[in-house]
Amino acid sequence: MKINIKRLQSSMDAINSISITPDGGVSRLALSDADKKARDMLKQWMMEAGLDVRIDDVGNIYGFRSGLNNNSHPICLGSHLDTQPNGGKFDGTLGVMGALEVIRTLNDNKVQTQHPFKIINWTNEEGARFKPALMGSGVIGGAFDEQWVYNIKDADGKRFIDELKRIGYFGQRANRLTAAKAYLELHIEQGPVLDKADCPVGIVQGISGSSWYKVTIKGTANHAGACPMTMREDALVSAARAIVEIRESAMSQSNSAVVTVGEIRVSPGTINIIPEKAVFTIDLRCPDEKVLVRLEEDIMMILKDTCRAEQTILDVERIWYSSPVTFSDGIVAELERSSKALGVPTLKLISGANHDAKSMLQLAPTGMIFVKSIDGKSHCPEELSKWDDIEAAANLLLKAALNLSE
Amino acid sequence: MKINIKRLQSSMDAINSISITPDGGVSRLALSDADKKARDMLKQWMMEAGLDVRIDDVGNIYGFRSGLNNNSHPICLGSHLDTQPNGGKFDGTLGVMGALEVIRTLNDNKVQTQHPFKIINWTNEEGARFKPALMGSGVIGGAFDEQWVYNIKDADGKRFIDELKRIGYFGQRANRLTAAKAYLELHIEQGPVLDKADCPVGIVQGISGSSWYKVTIKGTANHAGACPMTMREDALVSAARAIVEIRESAMSQSNSAVVTVGEIRVSPGTINIIPEKAVFTIDLRCPDEKVLVRLEEDIMMILKDTCRAEQTILDVERIWYSSPVTFSDGIVAELERSSKALGVPTLKLISGANHDAKSMLQLAPTGMIFVKSIDGKSHCPEELSKWDDIEAAANLLLKAALNLSE
Repeated sequence: MKINIKRLQSSMDAINSISITPDGGVSRLALSDADKKARDMLKQWMMEAGLDVRIDDVGNIYGFRSGLNNNSHPICLGSHLDTQPNGGKFDGTLGVMGALEVIRTLNDNKVQTQHPFKIINWTNEEGARFKPALMGSGVIGGAFDEQWVYNIKDADGKRFIDELKRIGYFGQRANRLTAAKAYLELHIEQGPVLDKADCPVGIVQGISGSSWYKVTIKGTANHAGACPMTMREDALVSAARAIVEIRESAMSQSNSAVVTVGEIRVSPGTINIIPEKAVFTIDLRCPDEKVLVRLEEDIMMILKDTCRAEQTILDVERIWYSSPVTFSDGIVAELERSSKALGVPTLKLISGANHDAKSMLQLAPTGMIFVKSIDGKSHCPEELSKWDDIEAAANLLLKAALNLSE
Repeated sequence: MKINIKRLQSSMDAINSISITPDGGVSRLALSDADKKARDMLKQWMMEAGLDVRIDDVGNIYGFRSGLNNNSHPICLGSHLDTQPNGGKFDGTLGVMGALEVIRTLNDNKVQTQHPFKIINWTNEEGARFKPALMGSGVIGGAFDEQWVYNIKDADGKRFIDELKRIGYFGQRANRLTAAKAYLELHIEQGPVLDKADCPVGIVQGISGSSWYKVTIKGTANHAGACPMTMREDALVSAARAIVEIRESAMSQSNSAVVTVGEIRVSPGTINIIPEKAVFTIDLRCPDEKVLVRLEEDIMMILKDTCRAEQTILDVERIWYSSPVTFSDGIVAELERSSKALGVPTLKLISGANHDAKSMLQLAPTGMIFVKSIDGKSHCPEELSKWDDIEAAANLLLKAALNLSE
């Protein structure tokens, strides 16, 4: 029994076509009109596949396929349809449409499983419009309270709950997922590791812990021509020194840690005025929590030493922390067995990115399958995975899910 | 004969009061309504002081006071009334009101000079609204063509010429200054040198040359969690390395060179995406042109080496260059003689900032007097000079101008 890659591809094309951007990306921000259209399409397809469709009180969509024993916990497959602004066609979408393709394949082959199946579209995985990320699965996994989530506002001041109701996806709390036999998520890697190794499929062992900071360095604004170099308190030079040293520190201490400064703003931000303020972010990730904590301490030391040397004033705020997680041994072993049986080459790897599967670890044995990302690109229109690789990964999802459903 | 510091102070307070900002700065962008109001006030005061007021075809305002020999070239004193957005109360304004105070003092004392006097308010010295800076004096000094200036647009797309006409200051080309016996400009230092040396007044020997660049570094956007450190092409890390090294290079090679990165922007500019583009400016200044050129070469080398090492792509554009200038020996000597006669302590120094006096060197023997800036602050509401220091500097302006007028 094999999935139908042509059908999977045409379903993905259809769902992406309604929110394509001028340069070929997809903009489907959580709870937007585009998200509503994609959800409506998914719901229609779920019903056409004979699934019992339910919506919970944070907008997660579930499609239930009966098993021989409907009292047993379901095999859950899912991911998310929301995207980054001008994001890619595969991130999240592949996992939802891949789950639907598994159901359609079971239907085609009139397969009756022991455990029932449940496929899921999680609300607002990206956190691009409403922060933080992993919102829908986070409520299910117990990380967030729904009342807190309801009141989160987007940049225009619109509340999550109002937008959820507006698009017609405010459902029943009783529909929440509360238990599962297993949770599997198919996703693109979003990094270059599989591509560099020329391996189509990855078996994910866990997700790095992450620690996010907002750093503010205050110096003194002065005329760029009139203030001698020795009399300066330059906020940007302080930030630049720290950015270079933080990178060196992470690379010298760990092969698996990554650290990124993705945002920086200086003020007043004029060519001929010495910057009096630099505000930047640090995104630090590591699969080993001990190393993560040691790197956090080193970063703090680097920031303090640099600001002391440059006579600038430091303010650091940790805005996010999540511990590393390890996926279930049983699931990882099943994925390895199934890939061997299928003859699909795989690589074991750690995910640096967060995924809904992290939330699901609180509820059920959980694992993830990665598909090779060409050039490792993601969150952009150039995001690409090859259909051959997707086919191999989707068949692995089908086989492992079937095995777990016995 | 001494200037009246109370009158000078109250005139400056009056002209600043019409465009004061909530935090005590002044916003009087060139050719704005605020600039018009200040010009109207100055024109009124000039007429009340018996001056013949003329406007030229780029809006420079001249006030002429007859001498015993009106066929001889005038002694010119001037500066500018336009300011940076939320700038200070002294930058430019002091030089215009100081020139007016000299005229008022001559009137009070019924002094008849051999050479006539001309006081000047130059249009758009700052270049904050219409770029580049030194626009009005630049046309007079021959650096810019008036037709080119007329078509320069502000950020809202408004043309210089239309705004000049709108505020009623489009005058006659025949009114342009074409020759002068001498040009003197009183200005705040805008840097910390006099303050650190605890010296009230500076005699300016020249203005540093300056070279401005726009640097664009292109890397590759990737997921901050999913892309290993060794597989990155990080535009911001490249920029940060260059910023640190450029600073070290300038400091190690010259005591008088200054280099500033005042603006930086990264895109996409998101906490969890590796920056694919960093755009920043470099402002390099040095009084010695040979050193300036060598530092330019070093900066280019640093940028190239850094981008090669980081596997990023470099694009550099030089957006401005001006050679260093040296003020007239005769004027510097006169300022030294006059300050000694007055018992005013002075320090000789080089200006890192540009001034209208630079343009005037094309027309006449030229010099500048600096007043100590407290903490060296300028272009901000905190800009401050003490009235005692201003009094000493304005009396030096009066005495030197009088001596030159014989």
